[in-house]
Amino acid sequence: MSDITRIALDAMGGDNAPTEMIKGAVWAVNENADMKVFLVGKEEILRRELQKQTYDPERIEIVNADEVIETSEPPVNAIRRKKDSSIVVGMKMVRNKEADAFVSAGNSGAVLVGGQVLIGKIKGVERTPLAPLIPTKDGVSLLIDCGANVDARSSHLVQFAQMGSIYMEHVVGIKDPKVGIVNIGAEEEKGNALVKETFPLLKEAKGIRFIGSVESREIPRGQADVIVCEAFVGNVILKLYEGVGSVLIQKIKEGLLSTFISKVGAALAKPALKSTLKSFDASEHGGAPMLGLQGLVVKTHGNAKAKEVRNTLKQCVLFKKQKIDEKIRECIQNREEAAE
Amino acid sequence: MSDITRIALDAMGGDNAPTEMIKGAVWAVNENADMKVFLVGKEEILRRELQKQTYDPERIEIVNADEVIETSEPPVNAIRRKKDSSIVVGMKMVRNKEADAFVSAGNSGAVLVGGQVLIGKIKGVERTPLAPLIPTKDGVSLLIDCGANVDARSSHLVQFAQMGSIYMEHVVGIKDPKVGIVNIGAEEEKGNALVKETFPLLKEAKGIRFIGSVESREIPRGQADVIVCEAFVGNVILKLYEGVGSVLIQKIKEGLLSTFISKVGAALAKPALKSTLKSFDASEHGGAPMLGLQGLVVKTHGNAKAKEVRNTLKQCVLFKKQKIDEKIRECIQNREEAAE
Repeated sequence: MSDITRIALDAMGGDNAPTEMIKGAVWAVNENADMKVFLVGKEEILRRELQKQTYDPERIEIVNADEVIETSEPPVNAIRRKKDSSIVVGMKMVRNKEADAFVSAGNSGAVLVGGQVLIGKIKGVERTPLAPLIPTKDGVSLLIDCGANVDARSSHLVQFAQMGSIYMEHVVGIKDPKVGIVNIGAEEEKGNALVKETFPLLKEAKGIRFIGSVESREIPRGQADVIVCEAFVGNVILKLYEGVGSVLIQKIKEGLLSTFISKVGAALAKPALKSTLKSFDASEHGGAPMLGLQGLVVKTHGNAKAKEVRNTLKQCVLFKKQKIDEKIRECIQNREEAAE
Repeated sequence: MSDITRIALDAMGGDNAPTEMIKGAVWAVNENADMKVFLVGKEEILRRELQKQTYDPERIEIVNADEVIETSEPPVNAIRRKKDSSIVVGMKMVRNKEADAFVSAGNSGAVLVGGQVLIGKIKGVERTPLAPLIPTKDGVSLLIDCGANVDARSSHLVQFAQMGSIYMEHVVGIKDPKVGIVNIGAEEEKGNALVKETFPLLKEAKGIRFIGSVESREIPRGQADVIVCEAFVGNVILKLYEGVGSVLIQKIKEGLLSTFISKVGAALAKPALKSTLKSFDASEHGGAPMLGLQGLVVKTHGNAKAKEVRNTLKQCVLFKKQKIDEKIRECIQNREEAAE
């Protein structure tokens, strides 16, 4: 296998495509010698944008795809019908081993469906969770699952804990990551039916460091590195994080600008404040990997800019170097053998 | 029925009992001519504390209760065994019509269990939700249910929507409140099994103004006045609100104090900032009512101080004046008759 990580980037997906996608790709290849990016999308448009940039032409290549799946399109239909869309073309490159990873800021549903249908799961993996990194007080945690797998079963959650631990240890670099399950109280007897069923399975599961229940109040404080929950709850957590954060920051801005004196104060405090808030910004940490597939798929925020794209592309390199696919395959197989 | 609202206050419950409970009670009766507060707890301790205060002795009375249910105690056992606890004694006053309402900052589980077991539900009410008010960008929304009813059914959620609408309209004063169901996307076809089943029932339900799905990102922006969800999700939302808010404010403080210049700026901006953040503080809005009981029960935050206690006691007066119990009874009966 080559030492170069080949990444298919959906150059047409997201609010800021193609400009920010292209900028992010150029930024990433200029920083990393071990990466090649395929910009997937409408060739003419991409070529025009790319001409404005300075980069090694060996390391960025355009792959034509004439169609675009819009954010509002029903995913299953879109994947089936738009065979020449940037998402379908990029995913097929991963399936055909022409690329190691696919990155998109486009239609989330289409990315999730495409991953399962076009790339396929690792043998033994029951569900393929989408696992974004969320900012915490002093670092970052992996929230798994935030994807489309609502009404999951306990066995799915155990696999999420295992795959998430592998990712946090080898891609994010947290040694022996702490795994917690989202619950409504700290005690083992608390919870809904799914959590009560999953709790003892996580206690017994090998290869993870299970610390028990995590109340959502403790998530931003970084109580666990891998936060396990089913996708409905994960989606609520992810979006509420964003909602509370943005409303609070907006209110603080209004407060700072409400009087003349406070405006002066705000001007003085701004640089220091900005750098602290940056550490609580999800886009600093790159996109959300979809785990358990035969190849890597990463979904970035719909409003991703060049920096998030560049950070995500770097994540892909680490994912390949650390052989995350193989580690997940081994972990799931060991578990299946143990169960036989 | 008397025009005075009689409220049994658990003077022993919560982190700041009894001092802040007593201060809150004195504050409230000194402001409201139409309220009488029974301080339920250890008589000797309460009498000593009360002596420090100035108030009309006709309007505050001590009711002795020798036991205290601790925050960590298993609720069902505690309610069964500690018959002379402030929670059990106060709840029985409501059951025996000696009080119109019971307010506690103590063991949440015991308050929830006690409400159901000792006071009992209004006929036709299937579950009794706990419904805190949460701050939003420009006001407040009712999050219903955050109680102990995990794994709820769709018919429960419809009743939550109806009871919550009555509360928001007549106690909080929001005319024709908007009702939304917590979901992972804006479209009707999205969601888990419970949400998909509940959505059409809410569309058909009479007496409410259903606006559809609310993604959690939109909750802090105030998209709906009544936010319907089952208790597991509600609990996650409530505690995450608190967690993200407190971590973010802590980070902002650190940022403001990180350099000399920013410290000067922070000092200038402080008063304006403080008043904005206050509007995003849940304790400003009083406690969480438990709806659908034959009498009112309100749970305040465990760390409630005098101000929250005072605001909660005022809420109880409004609850009685607006005859919320009767309105809920009528609404549920109408629905039952319509279904027959």
